[in-house]
Amino acid sequence: MSQGVEWTLHVLLTLAWLDDDEPVTVGQLAAGHDLPAPYLNKQLQALARAEILESTPGARGGFRLARPASSISLMDVVAAVEGTQEAFRCTEIRLRGVGESLPGSSFDAPCTISASMRRAELAWRRELAAQTIDDVRSEADSHAPGARDATRRAYGRPVG
Amino acid sequence: MSQGVEWTLHVLLTLAWLDDDEPVTVGQLAAGHDLPAPYLNKQLQALARAEILESTPGARGGFRLARPASSISLMDVVAAVEGTQEAFRCTEIRLRGVGESLPGSSFDAPCTISASMRRAELAWRRELAAQTIDDVRSEADSHAPGARDATRRAYGRPVG
Repeated sequence: MSQGVEWTLHVLLTLAWLDDDEPVTVGQLAAGHDLPAPYLNKQLQALARAEILESTPGARGGFRLARPASSISLMDVVAAVEGTQEAFRCTEIRLRGVGESLPGSSFDAPCTISASMRRAELAWRRELAAQTIDDVRSEADSHAPGARDATRRAYGRPVG
Repeated sequence: MSQGVEWTLHVLLTLAWLDDDEPVTVGQLAAGHDLPAPYLNKQLQALARAEILESTPGARGGFRLARPASSISLMDVVAAVEGTQEAFRCTEIRLRGVGESLPGSSFDAPCTISASMRRAELAWRRELAAQTIDDVRSEADSHAPGARDATRRAYGRPVG
């Protein structure tokens, strides 16, 4: 999994903490975690294409959440950054070698190995889909109560 | 995930079907699915290091299962081929940028983002650990009843 997932999840948590419609430049977001702005920008554009972020152009433009943090799952983010292809790729090697001697009907059911690997992948996806950015924010608030205010201050938002 | 996982799972299913102590050469196993023998050998050596396969040297040497197929989980195989590192790698970017202004105690709990991603990874691992090569064999036998006998014939084993 690329670093883009870690980076974008942290950016989304930051935007959830800011909790307003004011766009934030990629330069500010990159500075927020000391990340390289051009690479981060590429990842944030992927989130914009997936309608997780809204990208606003212009001198005061930047990124803001396109929908509530409670409607952005970790699965949405991973799919936007990494794509939706499964980690295990079945290339149907069951058809080759010994399989060539079998009648075609032997392969009507999906490959058992592929199906078994898919069960695990689905468990992973289900767990990612069940957790939202708002869940992460809420858990972070209980574990590190100062992080929200420090972030709001760094981005020029009122703290109270 | 590398092709090695698909290849080795199919080889293990083949060995489960043969169901004896006779070592099978890497050349035979490669021919069984029309795979490149040198690359397959590298993967099978990884399974031998993980004590999933036993490698026997010599002219009549080869590979056989080191333990019953019911004691080899899909997780064992994935770990042997891919290693045990988690797909999501937390590089602790919470410490950088805004995080530098926070007291060290803010970071006593694990990063919430990392913990959330780990929950999904654990769900994946649990599912892989719950399925054995013998489960795969049993499911394959019910979906493609001819595959076992075709495999046994191709490897010179009695069919009955």
